[in-house]
Amino acid sequence: MDGLKSYLDIVKECDNFPYKTDNPSLYNSYLKNYYAFKVARIPRPFTFPDGWVVDHERQELILAPALDDNLTESEKAREKARRRTSLMDSTLKTMSTTSTHPEFTSLARKWRDETFPIYTTTTKPKTLLLEIERSASALFGILTSGVQLTAYTTDPATNELKIWVARRSRRKQTYAGMLDSAAAGGLETRMVPLEGIVREAVEEASLDEGVVRRGLKCVGALSYYHVMSPSPSSSSPNKARDAKLEEVGFLQPETEYIYELHLDSDTRPKPGDSEVEEFYLWSVEELKAALLRGEFKLNSAIVVIDFFVRHGVITAENERDYVEIVCRLHRRL
Amino acid sequence: MDGLKSYLDIVKECDNFPYKTDNPSLYNSYLKNYYAFKVARIPRPFTFPDGWVVDHERQELILAPALDDNLTESEKAREKARRRTSLMDSTLKTMSTTSTHPEFTSLARKWRDETFPIYTTTTKPKTLLLEIERSASALFGILTSGVQLTAYTTDPATNELKIWVARRSRRKQTYAGMLDSAAAGGLETRMVPLEGIVREAVEEASLDEGVVRRGLKCVGALSYYHVMSPSPSSSSPNKARDAKLEEVGFLQPETEYIYELHLDSDTRPKPGDSEVEEFYLWSVEELKAALLRGEFKLNSAIVVIDFFVRHGVITAENERDYVEIVCRLHRRL
Repeated sequence: MDGLKSYLDIVKECDNFPYKTDNPSLYNSYLKNYYAFKVARIPRPFTFPDGWVVDHERQELILAPALDDNLTESEKAREKARRRTSLMDSTLKTMSTTSTHPEFTSLARKWRDETFPIYTTTTKPKTLLLEIERSASALFGILTSGVQLTAYTTDPATNELKIWVARRSRRKQTYAGMLDSAAAGGLETRMVPLEGIVREAVEEASLDEGVVRRGLKCVGALSYYHVMSPSPSSSSPNKARDAKLEEVGFLQPETEYIYELHLDSDTRPKPGDSEVEEFYLWSVEELKAALLRGEFKLNSAIVVIDFFVRHGVITAENERDYVEIVCRLHRRL
Repeated sequence: MDGLKSYLDIVKECDNFPYKTDNPSLYNSYLKNYYAFKVARIPRPFTFPDGWVVDHERQELILAPALDDNLTESEKAREKARRRTSLMDSTLKTMSTTSTHPEFTSLARKWRDETFPIYTTTTKPKTLLLEIERSASALFGILTSGVQLTAYTTDPATNELKIWVARRSRRKQTYAGMLDSAAAGGLETRMVPLEGIVREAVEEASLDEGVVRRGLKCVGALSYYHVMSPSPSSSSPNKARDAKLEEVGFLQPETEYIYELHLDSDTRPKPGDSEVEEFYLWSVEELKAALLRGEFKLNSAIVVIDFFVRHGVITAENERDYVEIVCRLHRRL
């Protein structure tokens, strides 16, 4: 073994919740560790005083705040979301100070004061059920969304493709010092993907907003089901930081909206906030080598793989797991 | 209703085998109509004289020809594949003349004398189990592979993207007169995707082989699980020809390897064999209109949708079902 990963290894590290069709008993052994998180349609008679219901038999955790009945139907939906958000917020704050469980005590330190939205999955259009503090979303296995930008250029002398790669700040809480996309971020409540990626590109990479808006291309979405594990790549010296011990087993189903930006050869991204330490302009070969050494943040690694697929670097001819890779980059959640 | 489909409608017409997670009882009602097709590892004691075993209880159909024991291990694998291929071939030929079932009697007319390969799904590398006559593969629900080429150009005056679209011959057995990719075809036994698409581009679109090989880019793979239905788009005047009555219910899980070719504005594909009647050079808007009117062959329609996703025509902003569409274009089979 040369310590290098295969592309499929990388995809599997990211999309690592088992598939039922591959191994039903493994899948079920995972499932039995989790409770479904639900919100009740109406306040239920057996609601606990604080609005939470735990049903151990059905493995369900239900959020059902009491509701004022003197409301119109349209007020009700918004009021329900507000109540749930407020109940979730106060519960998390209380737990972070009173609980002795490390997943709660660590919340105070990780608290970001940004919320992720939780939507209905079965209605069209989807409606907002509640908002949850960003750092707590993994506690509930909430489906989160993010945006990722691959910025690249064409070498004027050689016509060669060159890709901008970010080195994450060594002071970041997560994946410190690892490699990353030119810009990326989570989609907070009420943020649409396009505005999210424009903001990240301007803030993290100091790119001109006009340049970004004119050149930006939406080129797909990746989705995967990640379970946090203590050390996803212990074989590698450049060990990926995945979960702290208190987070092991947390579920992170995630959708990433993928954008591309072809830059002029004289436009250079520069670190704009404390997120990025440095930008590199790499050839496909340099990028591939760093990727297979495991130096990328997990969900940015699969963005590189998707870029390689779309640009004909990874092909049906040179990659034996081609179809499996392409399908697992797009898991239906 | 204006009679136009949505992009998701089109994807769902193609990927139309139900998902277990969406509706377990519908999924199971589909499953009970099918028998698993298996090949036995070793000749089994209860093998019928003709090498076929039908196990009604387990819903299994097993192909297990007797094997000469005086063979080395490496000879055995190849010999087994040869025996199974030969048994399958003679069974199909016999059935096509002696059976009164329309799915068999129609075989003689549809016989193409090209075979599709059937591989192991669990071993790495995959090995060939047997070959099956192309026109009979849907009888067994065999996973087939194909190649599709989108040829496009950039208008030198306006810099606008223009896409080459083929009109299928009105004399073709399947999807006669409908719109199609610039070149496409099924992957026969021992044909790799790249060679398959080069051959189709040269034969069907009369493109120069050198031009094709230099410009061709492998940009992904689509996969879907199709069940043949009598009229997938009865609401449309340009009704897609899907299954003949004798084929209703046939399973067609399929993987399509996707290629792109950017052509100079003075290179024009021309019908090269009897497959294509005419080529059109269309703007994105013209292509989109024809697509949503349901004028494309089903699995070429999703190639257009995938092209639109990769080229930023369909985006996270303008398409509410964006993530669902992208995931269902890449069903894990």
